Amino acid sequence: MELNIALLPGDGIGPEVVGQAVKVVDAVAEKFGHKINWTSALTGAAAIDAVGDPYPDATHEVCLAADAVLFGAIGHPRYDNDPKAPVRPEQGLLKMRKKLGLFANVRPTFTFPSLIDNSPLKRERIEGTDLIILRELTGGIYFGERGRKDNGDTAFDTCTYTRAEVQRLAKLGFEMAMNRRKKLCCVDKANVLESSRLWRETVQDMEKDFPEVEVSYEFVDAVAMRLVQWPSSYDVIITENLFGDILTDEASVISGSMGLMPSASIGLHTSLFEPIHGSYPQAAGKDIANPLATVLSAAMLFEDAFGLKEEAALIRSVVDKSLAEGVVTEDLAGKNKAYKTSEVGDWLAAQIG
Amino acid sequence: MELNIALLPGDGIGPEVVGQAVKVVDAVAEKFGHKINWTSALTGAAAIDAVGDPYPDATHEVCLAADAVLFGAIGHPRYDNDPKAPVRPEQGLLKMRKKLGLFANVRPTFTFPSLIDNSPLKRERIEGTDLIILRELTGGIYFGERGRKDNGDTAFDTCTYTRAEVQRLAKLGFEMAMNRRKKLCCVDKANVLESSRLWRETVQDMEKDFPEVEVSYEFVDAVAMRLVQWPSSYDVIITENLFGDILTDEASVISGSMGLMPSASIGLHTSLFEPIHGSYPQAAGKDIANPLATVLSAAMLFEDAFGLKEEAALIRSVVDKSLAEGVVTEDLAGKNKAYKTSEVGDWLAAQIG
Ligand SMILES: CC(C)[C@H](C(=O)O)[C@@H](O)C(=O)O
Ligand SMILES: CC(C)[C@H](C(=O)O)[C@@H](O)C(=O)O
Repeated sequence: MELNIALLPGDGIGPEVVGQAVKVVDAVAEKFGHKINWTSALTGAAAIDAVGDPYPDATHEVCLAADAVLFGAIGHPRYDNDPKAPVRPEQGLLKMRKKLGLFANVRPTFTFPSLIDNSPLKRERIEGTDLIILRELTGGIYFGERGRKDNGDTAFDTCTYTRAEVQRLAKLGFEMAMNRRKKLCCVDKANVLESSRLWRETVQDMEKDFPEVEVSYEFVDAVAMRLVQWPSSYDVIITENLFGDILTDEASVISGSMGLMPSASIGLHTSLFEPIHGSYPQAAGKDIANPLATVLSAAMLFEDAFGLKEEAALIRSVVDKSLAEGVVTEDLAGKNKAYKTSEVGDWLAAQIG
Repeated sequence: MELNIALLPGDGIGPEVVGQAVKVVDAVAEKFGHKINWTSALTGAAAIDAVGDPYPDATHEVCLAADAVLFGAIGHPRYDNDPKAPVRPEQGLLKMRKKLGLFANVRPTFTFPSLIDNSPLKRERIEGTDLIILRELTGGIYFGERGRKDNGDTAFDTCTYTRAEVQRLAKLGFEMAMNRRKKLCCVDKANVLESSRLWRETVQDMEKDFPEVEVSYEFVDAVAMRLVQWPSSYDVIITENLFGDILTDEASVISGSMGLMPSASIGLHTSLFEPIHGSYPQAAGKDIANPLATVLSAAMLFEDAFGLKEEAALIRSVVDKSLAEGVVTEDLAGKNKAYKTSEVGDWLAAQIG
């Protein structure tokens, strides 16, 4: 099979971790007889530096032409804590999501048995956790009208949702639940927000089309609690953009395996795969960042973008092996030898070959 | 001293837990020679049933006339999962906050040594945690314009903040930090929201007035992570209404002492004190709910509303004693004897007398 993949390394540790995923993908392609056409493009601070735009049109063209996008991370400390910066790397992320129509961010949270003791939570709380948060990614307060009034002394942001946007996301959630433990939790703040009431009534209307799925409705504040108390009680969670931002990050740390969590963003024009960790600028260029989340994102890419399950399974099995044999970067090495980012990538590729 | 206190028991377990706090307050008043004038009033589902309004004008008058309000909880399952219910108990809560000008919700999160092992977090993560979240309570998306368009198919909510609202809340935060460990964290989403950028720039402008306070700025998603990872790293957190709703609930469970956490809402016209737990309808009328959070809210009432520190300290010390001696309700009793709600209240009052 011929796979056209756009490669957006981004900022900070992005290029390093993406580099290892490329090695792994190439090894898999070699083994299974696929041909990969990689096309790289700039995003984030790197793109601001080069052309003054964190998501340049040229990059958008590359993504549109690709069957899937492999993405690193965006963000640079130069732009933090400056509420008045005219262009910020994150704007590139939002523009990319909107222009590619990446409406659904899929974030699994699961545990690796060998890493469970890294969790801030007690073992008995976290064991068996295997949930997916499906976050709406192109609507809500991220993309509503915003601005200032009264000479800048009043600021406002608008959260807007349409029934169709909710249906599109929820349908995916119901389908995922059908392929899993058939439990769906719709997270909102319907006791306060009108947009949440639209979410809740829309999902309620869809229940009849998926009679096997057990649906629950919970308020976002309650979920922020229960994710810490009993994460294993969730299967598939659907929620709007801002709540999803907060809850996916919260969920990512409870697993104890944050450096390993992949994600997919499903789009109208293409799909994008990225590790959930950020650009981690302190580690950039040091060859110490953990590449496993990006490698596992590449596994999702094979499975979700191309339906290539065997390829995905092979990648996951060599990642399991690297954990079992301790071929890991310093964040996971404990008192044992820490491997370099590039060494982990080489080792994984060699295992596949 | 003569203390005029409005008593709003509310729904579910509200009346039971408030009842125990009243016993304790009366015992303290007796001991210190204060005179308490209690005036009760209806709120929540109870008030809807009686007069069709979850925060009736008569109740508002009672609160306005009082020096402080002791509140139980609001909420009834009859109104949950019904996005179309015309009147909901929570509307009473929001109306009360707005009409009493309760602009700042103060939520401490601390640990009781004897309860640390109840936390879902590992002991070494939670030990030493002593933080306050100061949540803005009368602005933001809770009170902005909202509605439907396109025959109900589009819903919107507006988040609005003014510089003055941010200053009022932040000033309190700086002052609290000065009385504590001098660390203030402003939590926002300034990489996306205009209202957050107003928050951040306003707080930045105030830094010079409190040169001793070390101020940090973090995004809400990062804080949702770090609260689980290293809660003891925070001192005072200030944030807007919706972020505060989510983060205070998340913080409450990590301490392992959720059933014990009190809160204060500081207002323009009066102040209100309430346990952070909800109305817990499953337990209503069974005399099993834990009254300690409400009793500790009464301690905050003595200290914050009337400056009566000794009275507050005495209440806290008898609560400590009840924990040490195991005079606790079933949620905390473990394998030992569980006391009834009313028995715990009687015991505490007797200890004070
Ligand atoms: C960088 C920021 C704009 C972004 C978001 O809030 O969506 C990030 O937190 C994420 O979750 O991908
Ligand atoms: C009941 C609800 C409206 C309320 C809120 O969101 O403020 C509650 O969650 C709280 O935190 O007091």
